[in-house]
Amino acid sequence: MQIRIANRTDVPAVLGLLADDDVSRARGFGVVPEEVDAAVWAAFESIDADDRNELIVAADGDDVIGTCQLTFIPGLSRGGAERMLIEAVRIHSGRRGQGLGGELIRWTIERARERGCRIVQLTTDKRRTDAHRFYAALGFEASHEGMKLML
Amino acid sequence: MQIRIANRTDVPAVLGLLADDDVSRARGFGVVPEEVDAAVWAAFESIDADDRNELIVAADGDDVIGTCQLTFIPGLSRGGAERMLIEAVRIHSGRRGQGLGGELIRWTIERARERGCRIVQLTTDKRRTDAHRFYAALGFEASHEGMKLML
Repeated sequence: MQIRIANRTDVPAVLGLLADDDVSRARGFGVVPEEVDAAVWAAFESIDADDRNELIVAADGDDVIGTCQLTFIPGLSRGGAERMLIEAVRIHSGRRGQGLGGELIRWTIERARERGCRIVQLTTDKRRTDAHRFYAALGFEASHEGMKLML
Repeated sequence: MQIRIANRTDVPAVLGLLADDDVSRARGFGVVPEEVDAAVWAAFESIDADDRNELIVAADGDDVIGTCQLTFIPGLSRGGAERMLIEAVRIHSGRRGQGLGGELIRWTIERARERGCRIVQLTTDKRRTDAHRFYAALGFEASHEGMKLML
């Protein structure tokens, strides 16, 4: 499995991974439109041009089998160190249970270390109990409430 | 109370607010050094130069009485809309219980709406039970586990 920064040609596959998920379906984002929306392309271009955002893919040959997004956030706390936020983690439904998710997240943690981040954080839906165990096994502590407000 | 983007002269007061907090003290960040560290100045400059990060202060005349940091995160989910992350929320210990925190957070939510964000999110330490009620009253739902890994 090769883990790398996504390029433009990966976008449709990433959208497929984001949609193929029970929680996303429940939010009304379970269908991938045939043509990628202009706003989604614009979002990809924004990420691609931003030194503090990285769309990551895990690929097996030509198949994109995993993804996540990293955001590096500067802040005045913790001696001015960056924090890394992980969002939108997905492993292809046909490839789960093979340790690929752990490999992907460990890769991102290594990236955070290289950059000098002092903390890595993410939120995971309370319904995703398997995910809580998964992240706890990687060293994460469920120390915070993750609060969301939809606009 | 005036709510605005922080400038360089606000930084020492913001550091004071960040440090004056039981959870920060427990993390070993409860003392403000007499001289602001170069890494903290660099972090401020990074935020100040970044269109997707804003350090916010609430001021009463010359007194900085509240702060938070906003990060606008582009993403492929939710039709390519940005999400807004709120971090490092503090109200001066002598000014709590006067509704200032609510005013500050409502101001940030309005800012998210103006920018077209579809979601506002934050994490709050599980020990901060008052904060959970505070954010719930503002419309936030504690739908997620907030997981952290210290490096």
